[in-house]
Amino acid sequence: MSELRLDPTTRAWVIVAPERAERPRPVPAGGKGGCPLCPGNEWQSPPELFRVDAPDGRWALRVVPNKYPLLVPGGDLARSGRTGFAAMSGVGHHEVVVESADHQWDMTTARDGEVPTVLAAWRARHRALQDAGAKLIVVFRNHGTAAGTSLTHPHSQVVATPVVPATVRHAFDVARRHSDDTGRCLYVDIVRRESAHGTRVVHQTERFVALVPFAAAVPYETWVMPRTHRASFARVSDEELDDLAGVLAKVLSALREALDDPPYNLVVHSAPPEDERAAYYLWHLRIVPRLATPAGFELATGISVNSLPPEQAAARLRAVLDGE
Amino acid sequence: MSELRLDPTTRAWVIVAPERAERPRPVPAGGKGGCPLCPGNEWQSPPELFRVDAPDGRWALRVVPNKYPLLVPGGDLARSGRTGFAAMSGVGHHEVVVESADHQWDMTTARDGEVPTVLAAWRARHRALQDAGAKLIVVFRNHGTAAGTSLTHPHSQVVATPVVPATVRHAFDVARRHSDDTGRCLYVDIVRRESAHGTRVVHQTERFVALVPFAAAVPYETWVMPRTHRASFARVSDEELDDLAGVLAKVLSALREALDDPPYNLVVHSAPPEDERAAYYLWHLRIVPRLATPAGFELATGISVNSLPPEQAAARLRAVLDGE
Repeated sequence: MSELRLDPTTRAWVIVAPERAERPRPVPAGGKGGCPLCPGNEWQSPPELFRVDAPDGRWALRVVPNKYPLLVPGGDLARSGRTGFAAMSGVGHHEVVVESADHQWDMTTARDGEVPTVLAAWRARHRALQDAGAKLIVVFRNHGTAAGTSLTHPHSQVVATPVVPATVRHAFDVARRHSDDTGRCLYVDIVRRESAHGTRVVHQTERFVALVPFAAAVPYETWVMPRTHRASFARVSDEELDDLAGVLAKVLSALREALDDPPYNLVVHSAPPEDERAAYYLWHLRIVPRLATPAGFELATGISVNSLPPEQAAARLRAVLDGE
Repeated sequence: MSELRLDPTTRAWVIVAPERAERPRPVPAGGKGGCPLCPGNEWQSPPELFRVDAPDGRWALRVVPNKYPLLVPGGDLARSGRTGFAAMSGVGHHEVVVESADHQWDMTTARDGEVPTVLAAWRARHRALQDAGAKLIVVFRNHGTAAGTSLTHPHSQVVATPVVPATVRHAFDVARRHSDDTGRCLYVDIVRRESAHGTRVVHQTERFVALVPFAAAVPYETWVMPRTHRASFARVSDEELDDLAGVLAKVLSALREALDDPPYNLVVHSAPPEDERAAYYLWHLRIVPRLATPAGFELATGISVNSLPPEQAAARLRAVLDGE
């Protein structure tokens, strides 16, 4: 079992997880021999938690516990003050969403209904882990080795943490302050302002706006923000998921074409369960291509260096989408 | 000129610097032909800001403005509220400390007096930029391509920012609160506690303690902390610099031997000039090897995942040093 340790100088948590050192190197080729997520190799994963069947009765999507988990269920939630530092057991959940049985499947080339199925699985696991008492549920997708993937089979991950991390607390403090100052939701303000301004918008639908944020930390960072005001991804409607699937496929296709299949991290930002009714927050999705290497300056200051103006990134992605 | 933009959701600054996209790819080989920092190619850099001569009259160390600066001197410090977002011109300083005329020079194989000369140059530039009105001065060293270096010639960098970044403000808030609660400096408490406990100590001298912190974010992260209580690196004494040079060379040698010349970022953490007399802060140095790839989980939560317990990392580094 891992251990959570609190950095006394930043109050950020660190997960010390020696088991993670044993993760396999990236599996390049598909097929029954190598890939532990391909059909036929189900025995290599811990027992299934969730499943969607294909018309032929075989599985179309499944969720299994991560074999090298950051956090595991069932343990003591008490803090220890050993040697004057705060720590606790690595209690939580870490799941793998196997998005398709097809090793070559990709969100950008998916058939109708496949991406909504993945998004619905994210929501289902979010809800289940919320009911299980998690302090925060994080859904994310790492694409490409440079984005930290160790498996090439299409998959996403869901982690439930036993603490609300300092950076999440901070983002909530910022949003709460904006709400106190203005009476409005900071994120709704961003959606309205960007939608009206237009230069950083990549794509818009009835329910979502995809945009490169004003202070994008890296080239081509893109946020997908809903027009319906909800703090938690767990409360999203089926209609929204369908619309979101289309927007997501479009944005990922544009990135793929503009940047030749770049590595990226995709993260669903959602309120901690205890704040799920917060009027000052808006769940949303962030896609962060991994094209640059942050160095000592970024580490020291938390200031990111972005060599591409967000307006240029948005214009390029719009041009790619217009050319389709 | 670059632009500083404030992310409204985190209040972190981002430097949008299109000029940085034009930086050269890493220069692998030394010699007059390729390396812009080698003797004979001084004309490729902007005019020298600081210099230490060798006994033969040639230069032993020089400081020049970065040719692809993140920030440049002389500009309007006013914030603009364009389209509702906060931004300002990229005003500041970005300098390169060419640590040696020898392309192959390294801190771990330096001769007597060479590392203290580098540290004294850092202090001199820190003081000069403080006098020039900087809000924060950051000294750092990127070693290896995976740590973000574009030049292999031994060098470090000094950046002066026109803002105090949110992460620095946050670290100061945490330290101030500890001081309010206990009447003591958080960092001095850490030095005392680690020194007494011993399991995470890598090396100790009269004036410094090198240790792997309790909540190290990555394997082999090492902090070098002074025993003399000062908030700012600008105020360090000559005796301390001499001692620090020895500790630094030892720690970097141990990392080099244990990890086969790993990429790393080295950062001097020092109080912003406006807080240089803060009794609740302690300047120190952090070395962060770049051995792992943070992914979506780290991005979403700010929680780092460290696959090596800090006590094991410290024991390994001690063993390497004992074997010398």
